[in-house]
Amino acid sequence: MNVLIVYAHPEPKSLNGALRDFAVERLRRAGHDVQLSDLYAMRWKPTFDAADFLDRDPNEPLDPEAASKHAYETATQTPDIAAEQDKLRQADVLILQFPMWWYTMPAILKGWIDRVYAYGFGYGVGEHSLRKWGDRFGEGTFKGKRAMLVVTTGGWAAHYSERGINGRIDDLLFPINHGVLYYPGFDVLPSFVVYQTGYMDESHYRQTLFELGARLDALWETDPIPYRMQNGGDYDIPSCELKPGLSAARSGLDIHLAK
Amino acid sequence: MNVLIVYAHPEPKSLNGALRDFAVERLRRAGHDVQLSDLYAMRWKPTFDAADFLDRDPNEPLDPEAASKHAYETATQTPDIAAEQDKLRQADVLILQFPMWWYTMPAILKGWIDRVYAYGFGYGVGEHSLRKWGDRFGEGTFKGKRAMLVVTTGGWAAHYSERGINGRIDDLLFPINHGVLYYPGFDVLPSFVVYQTGYMDESHYRQTLFELGARLDALWETDPIPYRMQNGGDYDIPSCELKPGLSAARSGLDIHLAK
Repeated sequence: MNVLIVYAHPEPKSLNGALRDFAVERLRRAGHDVQLSDLYAMRWKPTFDAADFLDRDPNEPLDPEAASKHAYETATQTPDIAAEQDKLRQADVLILQFPMWWYTMPAILKGWIDRVYAYGFGYGVGEHSLRKWGDRFGEGTFKGKRAMLVVTTGGWAAHYSERGINGRIDDLLFPINHGVLYYPGFDVLPSFVVYQTGYMDESHYRQTLFELGARLDALWETDPIPYRMQNGGDYDIPSCELKPGLSAARSGLDIHLAK
Repeated sequence: MNVLIVYAHPEPKSLNGALRDFAVERLRRAGHDVQLSDLYAMRWKPTFDAADFLDRDPNEPLDPEAASKHAYETATQTPDIAAEQDKLRQADVLILQFPMWWYTMPAILKGWIDRVYAYGFGYGVGEHSLRKWGDRFGEGTFKGKRAMLVVTTGGWAAHYSERGINGRIDDLLFPINHGVLYYPGFDVLPSFVVYQTGYMDESHYRQTLFELGARLDALWETDPIPYRMQNGGDYDIPSCELKPGLSAARSGLDIHLAK
């Protein structure tokens, strides 16, 4: 299998660097091909702007969606974007690894999403009409592939628990797991989160590697988060609202889980 | 009063550009001082990296938190970061305006947060011990100031409603409103969200300006989102978990609202 790790930490000699090296080694030993996009090492350009589109009239205002669509269709994107799209096409599994900065991913990784997820690739896929609102949320370019977040944070697990002040970790990561990964079709595995990174003694570190190793060994057997498919009958179209009666006993973002 | 608008859209001749110009004009006519950080026009550097710190031993590994703390304390941050911090200090109100890209802010704005929110300024403020977990979530550098998001999105309001497939807008914006704005002390006003930007006819546009104008006129009278203060007695310290019995009838991220 082919695993793409998109990695966003500025310092190789860090906990994140060690976890990345461990993951690459573990997957290769298991016989998998591993591609690594080390965004800091690549000096990835985070800013989506007019320079991303090689066939544009510079006198025309930039319409982000239209420019993305045209460049994707005519193969006039910049080579850095096209190369990452190729890696995604080849991947069976995508891993996004990053430290939690301000309750989400660092800017450099957000800029990878903003630029690589072109119209016609990451979105704008399938029929868009009043009876079909695109191939998305369970369908799309990445259908059949799997994805997982590997996240580190200085905060305690309790701070991110059901009643923790930061907000429950699954709710904080919902915009990424559901909005960035499930949207274009990935089956999304439960996130691997390392807490309290400021107190990483030998025992905590060994335990972290043990648990990460187990998750990597089980990438193909782990049950994905059971998000509901947009076009599976659970949502009204085009309002995209969950049909009355479904998840009636639940509230919050958990209503979008099928069980 | 002094209002700082941090604005992140690549095209001045866009709906976002028009809303920004309208807001600047409306606030100035009301007698306020308006500062504008137009991140695309400024060619803001989004990536937090070693180059942000002018007094670093390049042979030492980069510890993001320690480097940020040292640079902030010794005034050895890069001038672009220090200038934005000055604008924040002078502001009575902060407005973050951006198009929703992948259910959160564009990378260039995330990189403004990542870099400007230094240790000792955006976080790492106040006593950090097992009996006090910092001045945060309702306290901190920005206590007494107000903040508000102005967000545009192509999706429909129904898609972001209580049972909409994207997730409820307040839940999607919680990592920003609660984690980026309330964390360092801002009183956070309800977000101003413009939906269905692809269908912006004259009537929808006029209505949008009317509603935005009303929100800007009422910046100082609008009730903030009633998030619970970390150090107000509602949370156990150091677990930072909401005390038993509070919000007992609620679930999801709404448990962090005081009413």
